[in-house]
Amino acid sequence: MDGRPQTDSERITLAHGSGGALMHELIGGEFLKHFDSPELALLDDAAEIVVASGRLAFSTDTFVVKPFFFPGGDIGSLAVSGTVNDVLMKGARPLCLSLAFVIEEGFTVGDLRRILKSIGETAKAAGAAIVTGDTKVVGAGEIDGLSVNTAGIGVILPDIRIGGANARHGDAVIVSGDIGRHGIAVMAERNGLALKEPVLSDAAPLTNAVLPLLERFGPAVHVLRDPTRGGLAATLNEIALSSRVSVVLEEEAVPVARDVGAVCEILGFDPFHLPCEGRFLVFVDGDSAEDTVAFLKESCGCPDAAVIGTVERAKSGEVLLTTVAGGRRILDMPVGELLPRIC
Amino acid sequence: MDGRPQTDSERITLAHGSGGALMHELIGGEFLKHFDSPELALLDDAAEIVVASGRLAFSTDTFVVKPFFFPGGDIGSLAVSGTVNDVLMKGARPLCLSLAFVIEEGFTVGDLRRILKSIGETAKAAGAAIVTGDTKVVGAGEIDGLSVNTAGIGVILPDIRIGGANARHGDAVIVSGDIGRHGIAVMAERNGLALKEPVLSDAAPLTNAVLPLLERFGPAVHVLRDPTRGGLAATLNEIALSSRVSVVLEEEAVPVARDVGAVCEILGFDPFHLPCEGRFLVFVDGDSAEDTVAFLKESCGCPDAAVIGTVERAKSGEVLLTTVAGGRRILDMPVGELLPRIC
Repeated sequence: MDGRPQTDSERITLAHGSGGALMHELIGGEFLKHFDSPELALLDDAAEIVVASGRLAFSTDTFVVKPFFFPGGDIGSLAVSGTVNDVLMKGARPLCLSLAFVIEEGFTVGDLRRILKSIGETAKAAGAAIVTGDTKVVGAGEIDGLSVNTAGIGVILPDIRIGGANARHGDAVIVSGDIGRHGIAVMAERNGLALKEPVLSDAAPLTNAVLPLLERFGPAVHVLRDPTRGGLAATLNEIALSSRVSVVLEEEAVPVARDVGAVCEILGFDPFHLPCEGRFLVFVDGDSAEDTVAFLKESCGCPDAAVIGTVERAKSGEVLLTTVAGGRRILDMPVGELLPRIC
Repeated sequence: MDGRPQTDSERITLAHGSGGALMHELIGGEFLKHFDSPELALLDDAAEIVVASGRLAFSTDTFVVKPFFFPGGDIGSLAVSGTVNDVLMKGARPLCLSLAFVIEEGFTVGDLRRILKSIGETAKAAGAAIVTGDTKVVGAGEIDGLSVNTAGIGVILPDIRIGGANARHGDAVIVSGDIGRHGIAVMAERNGLALKEPVLSDAAPLTNAVLPLLERFGPAVHVLRDPTRGGLAATLNEIALSSRVSVVLEEEAVPVARDVGAVCEILGFDPFHLPCEGRFLVFVDGDSAEDTVAFLKESCGCPDAAVIGTVERAKSGEVLLTTVAGGRRILDMPVGELLPRIC
């Protein structure tokens, strides 16, 4: 279905969300052309996808990040990366995505178009097709701009058993790169912080890092998790609790870029609580730790990958931080409001 | 993970959405107990589901209906029914759902609990497990209460080829029950209309109507579609366009309950434009029309099912209405804003 072309300055109206003629123009004219998706073009109530027999990973996230555009990304690239990465963290090859917008009446077609373009490009890079969707328009003041929900399906690779409860005594804990970029990129933009060089968000789909890793190290990988909301601190606490182990981190081993560290000091953030949207944690057999890091650096596009800790037996899960001075302190689950609308 | 019990009058705060300790309390204390879902309880980034080799249906919708509670349903029952029904309309048995909330700071725990209870009960009735989810909390004024997104996966039944482009010359068009209840239930509640007997929404999962129908009539069914946003008018126009046929409706044959018709007159609505959330259209071989209606009445819980029209060859898709007087007029795709926040 072809839609009437619209100018960037036109605005979305309630009629665009009503199921009538204008909605069909919007979908035909804007949505379909950004996504190379024969399945979506059928405009059926549901998409048909074909899978081989097996285990699927299924995940969803709604994105409400503010501002919608930030250095290194936007709500569109984030909405694809976030869900694709959650599917990857289960050891699955991303297959397809759904895409659901809630848009405030008055939102510009130009901004929507930028977001759609970003979604299309990121989905292509991630190897996941947008196959089904939904668009609602609500009145002015009933939402702050727009929200984007994605749900994703992936096919879990053979012989992979990955989960937050699978960490074992002796595992090494590896991070794929420096932490906190996404949090700082968004907060600096939101606070109008005038940095000489903006900190770029790490938001990106991890398909081309995680799939080679799993193909190479397969069953030696026990846990994969991306440290999004709540950052490294929340993510490691969740894993420690689920697996009933202690995670012992070496504070100095955790890569934090100089500019991220500097902004953290200005804004009063702890880098361990800052979200990443393009980094992941790997819990792997201790024996494979060095090989895994080398492979991440050389073959997975993760030059800053590093071993940051180990797993120890424990009755109740906790995360311990070995400080430079040699002491150990508990790294708690974050408490309080932290960073609203960061993803 | 167990959470602290909360009282109905407590309010959701930004901290509930931050990925930290309070969020884990909310999920452990409220979400998990309403859904009997071992997969969800793992709290991994993605759920693992197992399917037999084959064709899957995948669909999503975000629900922003206002008010959240209305006669015959609420945003929770609607969020499950809407997506389950979209999966069913592809000829698939619903398997699982994702569930993603965006909640306004200050929303009461009591209202959230009512909605979660409704979601759990409706999902159970629909035969679909809630397996993965997400919760975001945004500031006061950044959303009007809450929105609920669901995405659903179903397994398409063998030998079924159903789609909006599959209507054929000679097909009979059947509706499973009276139309417009959902639209009237919500609009009457929103407008404070004091009806002696409230009109109840039809919102309900159609699993127990559609699956027996497909098992009995299988390949004779060419199109299934639920007339949601834009009502019968939009849905039939979409099918006519996709299939490049004319749909000829008999106006008098379309079941409209007396109370729905009465409220339509008061509020100035056309029942053909009103959404249903628990009715469906069946395009079936003309030869099977009477058998199909009889089966719907007797074995599918659809006592008001009726043949309402037929499909004719046409160059460009259109919907024609045969009026009581014997004339024919075009039933257009609805134009304009219609009914915002109806689903």
